[in-house]
Amino acid sequence: MDKEIVIFSRERAEEIVNKLRFRYEQNTVIAVVQDIDTKDVLMVGHMNREALIKTLTTGYLHLWSISRNKIWLKGETSGNYQIVVDIKVDCDKDAIVVLVRSLGPICHTGNRTCFYRNIADVVAEPS
Amino acid sequence: MDKEIVIFSRERAEEIVNKLRFRYEQNTVIAVVQDIDTKDVLMVGHMNREALIKTLTTGYLHLWSISRNKIWLKGETSGNYQIVVDIKVDCDKDAIVVLVRSLGPICHTGNRTCFYRNIADVVAEPS
Repeated sequence: MDKEIVIFSRERAEEIVNKLRFRYEQNTVIAVVQDIDTKDVLMVGHMNREALIKTLTTGYLHLWSISRNKIWLKGETSGNYQIVVDIKVDCDKDAIVVLVRSLGPICHTGNRTCFYRNIADVVAEPS
Repeated sequence: MDKEIVIFSRERAEEIVNKLRFRYEQNTVIAVVQDIDTKDVLMVGHMNREALIKTLTTGYLHLWSISRNKIWLKGETSGNYQIVVDIKVDCDKDAIVVLVRSLGPICHTGNRTCFYRNIADVVAEPS
């Protein structure tokens, strides 16, 4: 069964955003992106107010890039857009889980998830 | 099928930790805690080097509490320990997913997950 894409009006999106605590680096919440079908965690990123409002009003995953200091529409260059199906918020309102229909690999390595290896695997890698 | 609890030697744990990038607040990585059975995301926290080494060497989830500036064994007071079954690391080695067998509610509200409500639900709540 397909779930609908989640889209809110600008007004509603602002009401939601006003309730969250953007308390991490550069005034962000932590955003955990999870695949709606496999339930795998795909990546972890950050959203500031603007990134969350864009996500809520378009239904496409937008993040705030802390390193590049800009809004980032996932899939903008690769075409691997992440369609938002549901969003959960945690008890203290500083983190969200974004459930997505993933149109292609989310990771720049080409893997479907950024969490593609076990933690012990890093030991064998060049630093 | 039960999976084994993950325990590393102190030496191995240090090798692993030396490869990660503790680049968030108070020299931490972001730790996403996920239920091994339901695959629900249970909570998001942080781990510094010491919290990750304790987690790796005991098989019990330890976090670094940024607000309280201390190591935090999940379940220490409630008894709701979170047993580590697997740990994944992301492409740039600054975030991990900890898959746990959850012995009881992880959230201080008594919910099994901290992400127990939809994002739009916050609008109706008192600020």
